[in-house]
Amino acid sequence: MTVATQQPCDIKDAQLAPSGKKRILWADGDMPVLARIRQRFEQEKPLAGLRLSACLHVTAETANLARTLQAGGADLVLVASNPLSTQDDVAASLVHDFGISVFAIRGEDNDTYYKHIVAALEHEPHVTMDDGADLVSALIFVALERLDDVHTQVRAWAQKKARDERRRLIDQVVGSMEETTTGVNRLRAMERDGVLKFPVIAVNDAQTKHLFDNRYGTGQSTLDGIIRATNMLLAGRKVVVCGYGWCGKGVALRARGLGAQVIVTEVDPIRALEAAMDGLAVLPLAKAAPVGDLFITVTGNSGVIRREHFAKMHDGAIVCNSGHFDVEVDLKALETDGEQTANVRPNVDEYQLDDGRRIYVLGQGRLVNLAAAEGHPPSVMDMSFATQALTTEYCVKKKGKLEPRVHTVPAEVEEFVARHKLTSMGISIDKLTPEQKRYMSGWEQGT
Amino acid sequence: MTVATQQPCDIKDAQLAPSGKKRILWADGDMPVLARIRQRFEQEKPLAGLRLSACLHVTAETANLARTLQAGGADLVLVASNPLSTQDDVAASLVHDFGISVFAIRGEDNDTYYKHIVAALEHEPHVTMDDGADLVSALIFVALERLDDVHTQVRAWAQKKARDERRRLIDQVVGSMEETTTGVNRLRAMERDGVLKFPVIAVNDAQTKHLFDNRYGTGQSTLDGIIRATNMLLAGRKVVVCGYGWCGKGVALRARGLGAQVIVTEVDPIRALEAAMDGLAVLPLAKAAPVGDLFITVTGNSGVIRREHFAKMHDGAIVCNSGHFDVEVDLKALETDGEQTANVRPNVDEYQLDDGRRIYVLGQGRLVNLAAAEGHPPSVMDMSFATQALTTEYCVKKKGKLEPRVHTVPAEVEEFVARHKLTSMGISIDKLTPEQKRYMSGWEQGT
Amino acid sequence: MTVATQQPCDIKDAQLAPSGKKRILWADGDMPVLARIRQRFEQEKPLAGLRLSACLHVTAETANLARTLQAGGADLVLVASNPLSTQDDVAASLVHDFGISVFAIRGEDNDTYYKHIVAALEHEPHVTMDDGADLVSALIFVALERLDDVHTQVRAWAQKKARDERRRLIDQVVGSMEETTTGVNRLRAMERDGVLKFPVIAVNDAQTKHLFDNRYGTGQSTLDGIIRATNMLLAGRKVVVCGYGWCGKGVALRARGLGAQVIVTEVDPIRALEAAMDGLAVLPLAKAAPVGDLFITVTGNSGVIRREHFAKMHDGAIVCNSGHFDVEVDLKALETDGEQTANVRPNVDEYQLDDGRRIYVLGQGRLVNLAAAEGHPPSVMDMSFATQALTTEYCVKKKGKLEPRVHTVPAEVEEFVARHKLTSMGISIDKLTPEQKRYMSGWEQGT
Amino acid sequence: MTVATQQPCDIKDAQLAPSGKKRILWADGDMPVLARIRQRFEQEKPLAGLRLSACLHVTAETANLARTLQAGGADLVLVASNPLSTQDDVAASLVHDFGISVFAIRGEDNDTYYKHIVAALEHEPHVTMDDGADLVSALIFVALERLDDVHTQVRAWAQKKARDERRRLIDQVVGSMEETTTGVNRLRAMERDGVLKFPVIAVNDAQTKHLFDNRYGTGQSTLDGIIRATNMLLAGRKVVVCGYGWCGKGVALRARGLGAQVIVTEVDPIRALEAAMDGLAVLPLAKAAPVGDLFITVTGNSGVIRREHFAKMHDGAIVCNSGHFDVEVDLKALETDGEQTANVRPNVDEYQLDDGRRIYVLGQGRLVNLAAAEGHPPSVMDMSFATQALTTEYCVKKKGKLEPRVHTVPAEVEEFVARHKLTSMGISIDKLTPEQKRYMSGWEQGT
Repeated sequence: MTVATQQPCDIKDAQLAPSGKKRILWADGDMPVLARIRQRFEQEKPLAGLRLSACLHVTAETANLARTLQAGGADLVLVASNPLSTQDDVAASLVHDFGISVFAIRGEDNDTYYKHIVAALEHEPHVTMDDGADLVSALIFVALERLDDVHTQVRAWAQKKARDERRRLIDQVVGSMEETTTGVNRLRAMERDGVLKFPVIAVNDAQTKHLFDNRYGTGQSTLDGIIRATNMLLAGRKVVVCGYGWCGKGVALRARGLGAQVIVTEVDPIRALEAAMDGLAVLPLAKAAPVGDLFITVTGNSGVIRREHFAKMHDGAIVCNSGHFDVEVDLKALETDGEQTANVRPNVDEYQLDDGRRIYVLGQGRLVNLAAAEGHPPSVMDMSFATQALTTEYCVKKKGKLEPRVHTVPAEVEEFVARHKLTSMGISIDKLTPEQKRYMSGWEQGT
Repeated sequence: MTVATQQPCDIKDAQLAPSGKKRILWADGDMPVLARIRQRFEQEKPLAGLRLSACLHVTAETANLARTLQAGGADLVLVASNPLSTQDDVAASLVHDFGISVFAIRGEDNDTYYKHIVAALEHEPHVTMDDGADLVSALIFVALERLDDVHTQVRAWAQKKARDERRRLIDQVVGSMEETTTGVNRLRAMERDGVLKFPVIAVNDAQTKHLFDNRYGTGQSTLDGIIRATNMLLAGRKVVVCGYGWCGKGVALRARGLGAQVIVTEVDPIRALEAAMDGLAVLPLAKAAPVGDLFITVTGNSGVIRREHFAKMHDGAIVCNSGHFDVEVDLKALETDGEQTANVRPNVDEYQLDDGRRIYVLGQGRLVNLAAAEGHPPSVMDMSFATQALTTEYCVKKKGKLEPRVHTVPAEVEEFVARHKLTSMGISIDKLTPEQKRYMSGWEQGT
Repeated sequence: MTVATQQPCDIKDAQLAPSGKKRILWADGDMPVLARIRQRFEQEKPLAGLRLSACLHVTAETANLARTLQAGGADLVLVASNPLSTQDDVAASLVHDFGISVFAIRGEDNDTYYKHIVAALEHEPHVTMDDGADLVSALIFVALERLDDVHTQVRAWAQKKARDERRRLIDQVVGSMEETTTGVNRLRAMERDGVLKFPVIAVNDAQTKHLFDNRYGTGQSTLDGIIRATNMLLAGRKVVVCGYGWCGKGVALRARGLGAQVIVTEVDPIRALEAAMDGLAVLPLAKAAPVGDLFITVTGNSGVIRREHFAKMHDGAIVCNSGHFDVEVDLKALETDGEQTANVRPNVDEYQLDDGRRIYVLGQGRLVNLAAAEGHPPSVMDMSFATQALTTEYCVKKKGKLEPRVHTVPAEVEEFVARHKLTSMGISIDKLTPEQKRYMSGWEQGT
Repeated sequence: MTVATQQPCDIKDAQLAPSGKKRILWADGDMPVLARIRQRFEQEKPLAGLRLSACLHVTAETANLARTLQAGGADLVLVASNPLSTQDDVAASLVHDFGISVFAIRGEDNDTYYKHIVAALEHEPHVTMDDGADLVSALIFVALERLDDVHTQVRAWAQKKARDERRRLIDQVVGSMEETTTGVNRLRAMERDGVLKFPVIAVNDAQTKHLFDNRYGTGQSTLDGIIRATNMLLAGRKVVVCGYGWCGKGVALRARGLGAQVIVTEVDPIRALEAAMDGLAVLPLAKAAPVGDLFITVTGNSGVIRREHFAKMHDGAIVCNSGHFDVEVDLKALETDGEQTANVRPNVDEYQLDDGRRIYVLGQGRLVNLAAAEGHPPSVMDMSFATQALTTEYCVKKKGKLEPRVHTVPAEVEEFVARHKLTSMGISIDKLTPEQKRYMSGWEQGT
């Protein structure tokens, strides 16, 4: 059931709002840095007059970011960045309790997904936020007249616009924020291809973001998703983690922390060495396939677990993904070599191969932490979203002064977020003495 | 809604059966040792003619034990061992898909709980199974004419019986199995008090049980319950674990494995030393109270977290229990010094103290792994319940030959369970050579 | 050089005394429980008039035990329990600074080793202490006229005695203390064989001993010995730990704590399961042999690493032992299939096999923590030796009242040691409330 | 005793050469990447005609680097980079077995230290190597006529040179390699000050260096040094690690891996947050001082542990440093407030404060891993020194083309080192498929 309210929206069920509100407020209690920014935004209104389109996972944590941007004066449209990551009750509460336009329905098909992207475009944003760069991509395709490259929903909408209306879509963009590794990779590719016509802040690359959110957030929530989906004991299992970037490190750390025997696969020799020296087994996936009980992809790449690997897995092997897009596990190969026989538990699909072996896929190969659990805990999103809010303010202040390329998060934003997070955790730290500052800036003193 | 079927039962909703069946069969896939025993039982029927009353957590894993006992020929009644641990869909499936009598409804009040105990008594069991010794206690109270000590439901039922009928309740008991530490403690106290009139097997004390179920099972599932209830990030939190027995060790290990800073409280100096040498902080609870973010009791004792501790906790502290009974956290103290203000999430109740501080209690102070998650994973219950099934068979075979006291699990049962579990995990191990056997049994050879 | 002093002794070099004294006093600073006992012993002299022969590793920690026994009034002879574990400077200081009879020279041959055992026998002890049961074995062989079974040195000495003098050797023994798992195994075998004619206290089996000394002591010191011998980086190495008892658990824990990828071999299925659920690889040794970089035996058995395993190891594999006797690694097989080619570093011998592969053996296959490092740290020996001192006092007090069998350490000794160790670490713990004591001793209260 | 040989040298004792040679060859067995480079260098002689002065820790690992540079054709002088880190037997072997000029004596005073620096300058190097930038600093001071800033030994030597001879010292430098964080910090300060007149490669900043050497190398060897010095049990100790950079992370990881309860102090909020989320306690040093049992500085800064901290430590606290320079622990404060009372063990000095408390300082506050143990294990130095060798070759090839500033290590060097290290460990990894390469370089494909 889709409901209509005062502000435009497309959500599952307005009646879910009370449950969503509880969830949002509970999360808010664990997001003190963002709350502090929201309080200042309410008074200073630094985003007044700003149209902002955000394409993010619609969760309780994102809701608190949305509330903060709204408090700063932004006119906000929020759409889903993934068909399977929306919390419908949160979406309902955002619309009904907080008056924010939301277009997001859990389990929406691709058509609906892109209809929602259109809603974000239609808003003609000054600032965009992405988690995976789908919104910015659509914007650029449309504005640069590459209408063959966009989804039909977007094309249909774009064709109704005049050429300069389409062009205006990017001309009026003051800046864009990108939340995840995959999105930053895409944006750097855009920069290389010369199509990036406005400044983008790589929020993902902030230390206060990727060192924490990607590692501790993805680490815990991925295992959480797996356990909720399967109720499997991790102790004693052979868990194959594909990719040993920040997310992969977090996933491996937590899998080991739960008693699993972790095997890492990598394509980068330095990361592979790190994994080995962290005491983990490192194997090519072809050799890991027959021994693994559980496989988790976190590479940011496509086609990681393929037909040749499924062919070697033992009966009952469990496969899931915690990378941004659902391209890491090649489900088509499974469908070709066998068939989907049952949904044996919520978020657990059984595929039976021609030789009788069964492979279980969690959350349809989408981000398992969002499909089968609640995504990253608020405490860690506090840091990522505080950075989002502050870099948005930074873009607005620097309007017209930032070059059209991928920028890093300003050091003072990182410093602010880290210091206030520490304070909220009741932790105080040392300060450099004047002598130490002098020592660190000099070079004359040696042995 | 309570349904009626052919066999006597009291469950929530028969229509939940399909979901419960999925869950049972999924768990079965991870319980290979029990499945192997079930296959043999089907052929040999070692429990034929036996009435068996089991008072256990009614979960998917227990369902597979019930199926195994049934396969062995037992006439089985299953009742809940905790008001908040029943999986209603599993109960429904047991009744409707497997034809087993179940009396268990999640969230049942104490009256209903004891009505269900009465159903177990009414069955006049030859063998009983307990998880906490509630069924055996009731049996003994009734048979020994201590009707003042039993719940009114039990008393009312007992009073309808003749004295020798009551006495027969224990006279015909061949043996009893006890699953948990708390229950074994109670049974040893009964033995000391001279009221234990039939043999009891301390299944909990089997190495194949407590080294695994209590440690890895409770460890993972407790943290799982906490995360499902709160979605809190464990990394960086100060987690106070009260009790460093096998369960406490497991909980501390997993909390640390998820990045928490663990503080242990103990009353036993040897366990306290172990915790310290495991690199954990050890404090009296009075000193841990003001610093902890999350408190978990796993002591098997009562009144562990009390008024004086709540008085020192910081605003927002979270409290839960993973010990057998809901007596470890003194909720009455919270209610006296403040009031329950809200249910902020499923399984999260907020108590506001008079000074404004808020304390959050998970799962009403009952076993958080069963209240807020699915209890121990099947893989570990496989071992515990394989032991249950085999010791039941052992009791029957030894009928009349076991003294009326608490017995340990026979070594050959432990050996069987451990060996087949290893096999199911694809692990093979070394064998002693004849020379080594000789060396180990001799003493003559020295330096 | 062997020196003569007032009291009988056989040590390496008296001039090493100053270095040994430093070492003894430094260790003493980390043995507060033993120091406390020593102070009381000095006043109460509970061992006055007692002849005591101790066959222990002659290290700084043992020196402080010897000082404590001496303070208690005992007339003490200390001999080595292992040819390669004596710290010659400590031996020298014990003789010259503390006036204690010591017979122990690092690297002594078997003849000298047993000459020293003779010195311990010659002392005609009322109480003995063993670390491996060599002294007790010799005593029993001699007293029971099994002179064919003893070393020639012992036989020669025994033959000079009259029969009843030999018999008196055991008749006057009040009690004996045994420090290590291997020794307790031998003593239980003696008990089964009916040759144990006096009471023995299994100090090793005390919780305050084996949970700490065997696990944390052996764990750290074994890795310490390996690193001192080889300077190898543990991170990223495949370390095969043979045996997952308390010592093996400690070694595996520390190897993993240093970044190694640990593989466990076992013969006991329950221990093998524990290792697997602790997240370690478990393999039969035949499969671990080709992949291991470092092999450590801690089984208490003989012939663990054999010809068939050496045959599969890769060139450069390193092998060592941390079990009590030097029988776990079959050096003869290495010598038969190849030859000892070089001592490449102190405590590292190279064996070249016929096919050119090189195997490195540390500390001649003797306890690597004592051969290549300093043995267990004083902090943990504090607990073991406090228990030794108190059980010695206990034996004396119970003179004539203890049956001639293997006894466990009294609970009050364990309690004393644990409580005072905690205090010395600045740790205080909770006490049971009266309500809790009542709850724990009752059984009536249930759900 | 200082010996004279054909090539100029200043070493402790030529007769130590045999022991040193053993050590060098043993280390060589664990440095396969460097060995591979050495083989190529022997054939290609890429460093022919090059004078090279290296100021490094004179250890077995460095000896294998020196052999490699020599094999490449370099005319090499090696001097100590720290008064307490030289292995005298290695120095002797380098001179006598390998014909390399070495100026380094363990325990040399500052005058001798700088006489050795003069020997390195006198060599008029084309390429320099530093571990802490002492050689480059001296070079620049002299060449830029800042003779007031240099040690008297250097000044005396410089004053004998003509001005253009002094200037030539930097004019003929093709490039310089820097091995450690502290040195890179100094070089960046030089670059800021405009005094860096030749290109420097920050070898320390290579991923194949700092991710491994600083973390796993410093981690293990620091704890190794502490244990050798003290024989203390780490389990249960409160270990304060000052600094959570790569070295600090490694030290904290290993301390925890040995069972310690780790407390981190930091000045950087992001690193402090990382430590907290890694489950460690984070405190200002003033609060950590009274609780710590062992303090380890790894900050790269000066004056970290100061009078105010000593004032709060408990009796018996142990203090050491694993940062590059001996300025992190303020020994003068200890001497002012108390006195050095004894050397209680090798590398352990006791300081008694006026109030009677004793503080123990390890290795005189110099790098404890080199003062009390053997420094980083060869396996990890293999990577660092392979990078040194290859960047030296790179500098020579790029002669005249690199700007006079701090450069990073070329990616192909990192790739080579990582790939061959993996190979030597028997690890193979995955390769990107053509589809994956395409996916990673594109941006068009989204949801």
